[in-house]
Amino acid sequence: MISRPIAERVAGVARALGYQPNPIASGLRTNRSRTVGVLIPDITNPVFPPIIRGIEDVFGAAGYTAILANTDNDVAREREVLASMLARRVDGLILATALRHDPLVDRCLADDIPLVLVNRTVARRGVSCVVNDDALGSRLAVAHLARLGHRRIAYVSGPLDVSTGHARHRGFLAAMKAQGLRADHGLVQVCQAFTEGEGRRAFRELWARHPDFGAVAAGNDMLALGCLDALRELGLRVPGDVSVVGFNDMPMVEKLDPPLTTVRIPHYRIGAEGARCLLARLRDRAAPPERIVLHPELVVRASTAPPRALAGVAGAGSRRRSP
Amino acid sequence: MISRPIAERVAGVARALGYQPNPIASGLRTNRSRTVGVLIPDITNPVFPPIIRGIEDVFGAAGYTAILANTDNDVAREREVLASMLARRVDGLILATALRHDPLVDRCLADDIPLVLVNRTVARRGVSCVVNDDALGSRLAVAHLARLGHRRIAYVSGPLDVSTGHARHRGFLAAMKAQGLRADHGLVQVCQAFTEGEGRRAFRELWARHPDFGAVAAGNDMLALGCLDALRELGLRVPGDVSVVGFNDMPMVEKLDPPLTTVRIPHYRIGAEGARCLLARLRDRAAPPERIVLHPELVVRASTAPPRALAGVAGAGSRRRSP
Repeated sequence: MISRPIAERVAGVARALGYQPNPIASGLRTNRSRTVGVLIPDITNPVFPPIIRGIEDVFGAAGYTAILANTDNDVAREREVLASMLARRVDGLILATALRHDPLVDRCLADDIPLVLVNRTVARRGVSCVVNDDALGSRLAVAHLARLGHRRIAYVSGPLDVSTGHARHRGFLAAMKAQGLRADHGLVQVCQAFTEGEGRRAFRELWARHPDFGAVAAGNDMLALGCLDALRELGLRVPGDVSVVGFNDMPMVEKLDPPLTTVRIPHYRIGAEGARCLLARLRDRAAPPERIVLHPELVVRASTAPPRALAGVAGAGSRRRSP
Repeated sequence: MISRPIAERVAGVARALGYQPNPIASGLRTNRSRTVGVLIPDITNPVFPPIIRGIEDVFGAAGYTAILANTDNDVAREREVLASMLARRVDGLILATALRHDPLVDRCLADDIPLVLVNRTVARRGVSCVVNDDALGSRLAVAHLARLGHRRIAYVSGPLDVSTGHARHRGFLAAMKAQGLRADHGLVQVCQAFTEGEGRRAFRELWARHPDFGAVAAGNDMLALGCLDALRELGLRVPGDVSVVGFNDMPMVEKLDPPLTTVRIPHYRIGAEGARCLLARLRDRAAPPERIVLHPELVVRASTAPPRALAGVAGAGSRRRSP
């Protein structure tokens, strides 16, 4: 509207006078708030702080502000939070809360709201997302247990209505098959939520049915913590009686008793890439959706060892921690 | 400006038409953004997620949005973040980042910006804050160790330029005196930051000087984790050789090896009370400053036991964990 040299001169004078731009007013003018909404299930779940930190570092450097909200995996609460964010005219959204079939994601897409899913994704195509290769993660966990000599491997699955639970569960079954092992139906227990309590309950049910398996893989570290609780209550040793593998490598699991073998996910990078991806879509609304898949790695610690039957032969003792 | 019945009729029609209020525009009109800024050192420090959750739950219920920023305890970064929040016309601020003598806090007070400090506070008066009784926390830790029979107690202190480090350090010295114990100068080491690395370094320096103390109290759980690292590296047993007490009861420390004896702080309540306190100040700008002090409690776990010399007599073995 005005020429560039004049605009620069005005800006210079404004700076000299200590003038602070009012983003509320400039948001009305440009219809851009430079604010983005970030929905997560619960910030007190240790997986999310590093994701959030990655998101905020990238947005902060770009002059954007992220508004965070916890939904507690409650659809009504999520709808409410989303409405309040849209009323605040966020420029775009990052959701770590997606269900595999998610009407809220559908609505955002229909309304052409710039959107990136992180950690979890949806079953449909056409949505930008940054996720971990969950099938590969399950393969790493099963291959590790098989290499130790385990054949009876139980699985404590996360909920199947979210992609992380679903993909890791499918990945487990495929990996068992690929190893030539039978994925016994009775050795798989699906949880309603990724919580310690659900993991504990699931392990107890599995053990009540088949008190003979030598290893359990869990859909995430919280479920693995629940398995450790149940094992302790049942008077079983880890890894002496049952090996345990988690998924996430969330903070502190290296300090557990025993330190947890798990599949490491690059949480900070998931957040940072998610923010970068949303910024790209804000700059070019016509950009095609991106699907970014990051690779996990296995972290072997002291919660896994050869099965008891092989322990004497394979020297399981050496895998136990020194006191 | 318009009569109440007419305003209500207009609002009814607007609702029927699916009209969403635009908080950007109404923020310009009322000069209220219903947005508050929250500054924390680092969200990946496990102490902060429950504080944040408490803050967000209370603000969310009141129709306010909290904008979060990490400052990494860097003064330049904090100034930058604060400027950006004020430019966004936040109605008020919650700071979990205050130094004891903090020019940014002084500036906010001079500019009459509604402000509440949480977790940490400043040395000057006239600022609203919600803090833990840190002196009481130190007393609980020292009394517990003294009751077990410890007389040589070392202290790994947090930085003295923040109130938590300062008050717990002073509280430790006072508590030792109250117990009739000598707080040997050589048995106190002050850290530059509340980090595991600093705790590890401090413990190693203490042990190099006086390899004879039987217990160490730490300024927070991260420092205690560092002490545990150092003890492991030195081949010392906890609590067999040295008892360790933390401060915070942050998530997961009950699952450490050994589970950590520590002083529990009500983090969620600190956040929730901080938000409530700020809301009260936003409603009544003339409200006098509030100083809310919450009480900690001691949580005894397996990282503390009677000193070695007394172990046989006092039955220290029974305090150790069963395998």
